[in-house]
Amino acid sequence: MPATMRAAVVPALGAPLEIREVPVPEPGPGQVLVKVVASGVCHTDLHAAKGDWPVKPTAPFIPGHEGVGTVIALGAGAKGVKEGDRIGVPWLHSACGYCPYCRTGWETLCGSQKNTGYSVNGGFADYVLADPRYVGHLPASLDFGPAAPVLCAGVTVYKGLKETEARPGEWVAVSGIGGLGHMAVQYAKAMGLHCAAVDIHPEKLELAKSLGADAVMDGRQPDAVARLVRETGGMHGVLVTAVSPAAFDQAFGMLRSKGTMTLVGLPPGRMALPIFDTVLKRITVRGSIVGTRQDLEEAIAFAGEGKVAPHFSWATLGEINDIFARMEAGAIDGRVVLRMQ
Amino acid sequence: MPATMRAAVVPALGAPLEIREVPVPEPGPGQVLVKVVASGVCHTDLHAAKGDWPVKPTAPFIPGHEGVGTVIALGAGAKGVKEGDRIGVPWLHSACGYCPYCRTGWETLCGSQKNTGYSVNGGFADYVLADPRYVGHLPASLDFGPAAPVLCAGVTVYKGLKETEARPGEWVAVSGIGGLGHMAVQYAKAMGLHCAAVDIHPEKLELAKSLGADAVMDGRQPDAVARLVRETGGMHGVLVTAVSPAAFDQAFGMLRSKGTMTLVGLPPGRMALPIFDTVLKRITVRGSIVGTRQDLEEAIAFAGEGKVAPHFSWATLGEINDIFARMEAGAIDGRVVLRMQ
Amino acid sequence: MPATMRAAVVPALGAPLEIREVPVPEPGPGQVLVKVVASGVCHTDLHAAKGDWPVKPTAPFIPGHEGVGTVIALGAGAKGVKEGDRIGVPWLHSACGYCPYCRTGWETLCGSQKNTGYSVNGGFADYVLADPRYVGHLPASLDFGPAAPVLCAGVTVYKGLKETEARPGEWVAVSGIGGLGHMAVQYAKAMGLHCAAVDIHPEKLELAKSLGADAVMDGRQPDAVARLVRETGGMHGVLVTAVSPAAFDQAFGMLRSKGTMTLVGLPPGRMALPIFDTVLKRITVRGSIVGTRQDLEEAIAFAGEGKVAPHFSWATLGEINDIFARMEAGAIDGRVVLRMQ
Amino acid sequence: MPATMRAAVVPALGAPLEIREVPVPEPGPGQVLVKVVASGVCHTDLHAAKGDWPVKPTAPFIPGHEGVGTVIALGAGAKGVKEGDRIGVPWLHSACGYCPYCRTGWETLCGSQKNTGYSVNGGFADYVLADPRYVGHLPASLDFGPAAPVLCAGVTVYKGLKETEARPGEWVAVSGIGGLGHMAVQYAKAMGLHCAAVDIHPEKLELAKSLGADAVMDGRQPDAVARLVRETGGMHGVLVTAVSPAAFDQAFGMLRSKGTMTLVGLPPGRMALPIFDTVLKRITVRGSIVGTRQDLEEAIAFAGEGKVAPHFSWATLGEINDIFARMEAGAIDGRVVLRMQ
Repeated sequence: MPATMRAAVVPALGAPLEIREVPVPEPGPGQVLVKVVASGVCHTDLHAAKGDWPVKPTAPFIPGHEGVGTVIALGAGAKGVKEGDRIGVPWLHSACGYCPYCRTGWETLCGSQKNTGYSVNGGFADYVLADPRYVGHLPASLDFGPAAPVLCAGVTVYKGLKETEARPGEWVAVSGIGGLGHMAVQYAKAMGLHCAAVDIHPEKLELAKSLGADAVMDGRQPDAVARLVRETGGMHGVLVTAVSPAAFDQAFGMLRSKGTMTLVGLPPGRMALPIFDTVLKRITVRGSIVGTRQDLEEAIAFAGEGKVAPHFSWATLGEINDIFARMEAGAIDGRVVLRMQ
Repeated sequence: MPATMRAAVVPALGAPLEIREVPVPEPGPGQVLVKVVASGVCHTDLHAAKGDWPVKPTAPFIPGHEGVGTVIALGAGAKGVKEGDRIGVPWLHSACGYCPYCRTGWETLCGSQKNTGYSVNGGFADYVLADPRYVGHLPASLDFGPAAPVLCAGVTVYKGLKETEARPGEWVAVSGIGGLGHMAVQYAKAMGLHCAAVDIHPEKLELAKSLGADAVMDGRQPDAVARLVRETGGMHGVLVTAVSPAAFDQAFGMLRSKGTMTLVGLPPGRMALPIFDTVLKRITVRGSIVGTRQDLEEAIAFAGEGKVAPHFSWATLGEINDIFARMEAGAIDGRVVLRMQ
Repeated sequence: MPATMRAAVVPALGAPLEIREVPVPEPGPGQVLVKVVASGVCHTDLHAAKGDWPVKPTAPFIPGHEGVGTVIALGAGAKGVKEGDRIGVPWLHSACGYCPYCRTGWETLCGSQKNTGYSVNGGFADYVLADPRYVGHLPASLDFGPAAPVLCAGVTVYKGLKETEARPGEWVAVSGIGGLGHMAVQYAKAMGLHCAAVDIHPEKLELAKSLGADAVMDGRQPDAVARLVRETGGMHGVLVTAVSPAAFDQAFGMLRSKGTMTLVGLPPGRMALPIFDTVLKRITVRGSIVGTRQDLEEAIAFAGEGKVAPHFSWATLGEINDIFARMEAGAIDGRVVLRMQ
Repeated sequence: MPATMRAAVVPALGAPLEIREVPVPEPGPGQVLVKVVASGVCHTDLHAAKGDWPVKPTAPFIPGHEGVGTVIALGAGAKGVKEGDRIGVPWLHSACGYCPYCRTGWETLCGSQKNTGYSVNGGFADYVLADPRYVGHLPASLDFGPAAPVLCAGVTVYKGLKETEARPGEWVAVSGIGGLGHMAVQYAKAMGLHCAAVDIHPEKLELAKSLGADAVMDGRQPDAVARLVRETGGMHGVLVTAVSPAAFDQAFGMLRSKGTMTLVGLPPGRMALPIFDTVLKRITVRGSIVGTRQDLEEAIAFAGEGKVAPHFSWATLGEINDIFARMEAGAIDGRVVLRMQ
């Protein structure tokens, strides 16, 4: 094993990332070292690098929470994986394991959680440390490239769909057919749901159709929501991948009575919830944050069986600042995955 | 049976009610006639009389959806009750019985529902018609006076508490200890929940304590929410009986991660939902409208066993305009029940 | 409309059916008359004709609870359908509409229910009466022939699968790939489940594979259960379509911890439940009886979209005694549907 | 700290326990040492000592899984407790933390679990080791004596009641008012349930009444089940604390349609489940094994608030063989707790 590795480092919050040669970390007790093969780029990495959120990471640090690769070394007492295992290191790096959330399978709400690429170094590097009790396990049938986006984008939308509580045969809408939404359409279909895809770009709606969407809705059409409701009876669930006032209002409007809207983005600000209709129609609005380990294993399993395949393009670590720029401009289709090694 | 009866009639939307002598209605096929003994006054009656809501009632009409009394005549084919039965005629006068909501026990969301005291005449009269498949059945142990407020206020908060999905031993807060809230505290305790009462009037908080509240919070204290969260770990559920921006924000702030806020009021306008915290803490915000027949029977059963006893004062039909005036001024403690007959 | 119709009548419990010319019934208040186009034959019809169960039908009567056809006349006040509607008349002919089960969407447990082809005349006739609030509604895309078996066999296994509480991506086994089981495999797949098919006839296992089963198990192989558990991790749910001691034991043995076995047959006798393993593995054993109206609409919808297609053969009303004989001999593949008119 | 301690040791499966002086164990990495103050005696300890179950403990070993006391030493990296904390060491000594059951809050089903007083030494000793991530935390308001039986008997019946899925206001029956059942009655009442107590000893039924049971049933009366069903409408849930054929049949018979029977004992053998009624009434039969960490914290919290108080008698470690003899003879009322130190 080499002594140093290449990594994309945030030197200071808001500054461009720098490709540096840094020491390969050593796995401490209970940890493992992963040789990264592919590393997905998520909007959250951009938020992290810029320090957009209330609790900020401490620079310098290495972002990346969609890193997948091979276990190459185990720290003392590390359990649950062995050398050579193909794994992914997700946003939820580790949690306490015994708080009320951890002990009920909601470790994503643990107050002591550590986050990969945020409070601990992440996957924009040749090697990354992981807590083997919190990694995702990749089946042999799933290549590293398509696996990477499942680690965050995939599990996030899969969990968001579960949280609508829609059952097989019912209708869900996916609002926003981007990096998250195009995976959500596939998960919805694999879960036996009827799926309506909502976007304002016709080519995204075409993509959704090709992925199995049963209906599409162009959000720019003035009567789009009314028409969708007329054709389907209204949605049992709506997954909003990009929360904006317009998307929020449209999502709310397409719910049938007793429907649930799930929000998975983390924008600042507030959304204006119409109280009268919320009460009279018994609407549920719910936030959902990534997914638990169980959610992750399930999300990976769907991908491993070929039922969900992210659209992504390969890039190199050196392109990271350019990728971030395109991300901010909304110019990325699907996901970008860094080819490491 | 007399040919005519006294009733409080809304002559035109927004006009004062008039006490008129009107014909006693005859039960049509499947209907029953109820001799009203007591009739609770609800804020919704005021909204109805003023025509506050998008879909308006047609004047003249008789409000009232907390009327309780005795079955004295059955229409052809009426089933489910017999003469002499003590029943209540709730807001949900009837529903279609076979739509997707009716067939899944959510008749409160039926698009063809009729509403007592709104789309059909209500209980501010000596007699009222009912659909016996949708009435509440009063146990012998429950007097008419305390039964009346259960018909709407009681079932509404009981259902709202159920909809938080809080389980016995968990914490719920009741925001607003008025006509609804003081019953909610009692239901919460009867359901095995820990209950925090929230109000801005010290005497209401004292009342809540006397009804069993485990904690009270004066909403005017600047650090009230933080202190409640510190002492309890945060609420699993919050029932907001009067939705205002301040009440909404405080309710949101006192939820622990994975908590649920239920809204049962029907104010116009929107509430500003903080998205970041909703997502990161997996918060659920849910509307809840009255309760189903099953909820109503359960709500009545708790009252019948003496576990829930509404605070109310008797009044007469002739006082209705005065009661409405006091209601608008927020000058009513508990509930007002009209003594009929 | 003719005055008389052909019907297969049970003249006395246990006697062969007789094809008789009987009066066409007239729809009473709230009822509709259905011109039957196709009528599925179910094992329950045989039980009915023989009087096998504790509560017996009163002869003479007309069996049949998978009759589908067209509404041709409405009784006074009949609601929910109109002339020309294509509907099915299921086992649950009607229920009271207001008991604790009816008001919570469990009308299949209503103590006042009437059953088609049992306590009221059924679909082995040119015409049959129906309560329009309890019928199934057929989409235009679903032919009468394949619709018939959905009315009982389909909804029964669909509900049974739901009652396992298995979620998309989890494993269910279907024990017995006969008239019920071959539909269960298709429902399981449409619901996003992994499905293992269990039978002792290789050709049934081949059929299951062709219908999408992910795994098959020959119940005669001595290590069959152990192997299935090894390959899949054990079942989250098992649907037992034909309860025999051997099938029960194998089903129990293939459950993983926290798994649920659902039983949908109605044999006499008892099954020997192993207590130690039930407790230590937190096993759930649950009975399931046909399906509610909501279940029926969902079951029909899957068939209407072509996701479930029963294998059936056409027969004529005059062949009914022969069909029963073959049924008793276990010599029927899939379902038999009588072509009426 | 002394070098040795007193312990009740099983020298060989089936042999009488011996009170020996043995080394005080040292907490390994992640472990803590607990000075035991009180230690409840459970029927499972007797099964362990006799080697009654398929997977047997390895003698010599120290039984006891209701030991409560004070943390006096922490091993390297031990987290979640600190010196001086008052804790209990339950049956579930530890689990892997990452298998499908552990990651979904069902660690009681973990295939790698260790069990206190069975696969690792237990609480019949002055000191016991614990994994601090799996202990119960005792509130200051709860004395050690009454806390001990909560660690197993309490949490077992509390979980068993939860697993009936009965909601506040519904009816549960507790079959067997012994060491487990008398706590179950109290938990049921604290959870807002109606509770019927079932036993064959009048003094046990009197005890149940004094603990709040709403109804009692003497299982020896021939019409007991029918009468209970007539008076209550039947049980939504039944908790069977001691599974015998008679208790099983009576429990089954008192369920209303859609009811659930939960079994918490671990006898050998099978119970004869009536299939016809199970299916027609949609009955659920479910095993339940102790409780998860979350269940344990909840069960302790009810006791800490004084809502559940086990009846127990103090004894000394030296009496253990006599206690086991009385246990086998069914001569113990409530629970026995050993006073250590």
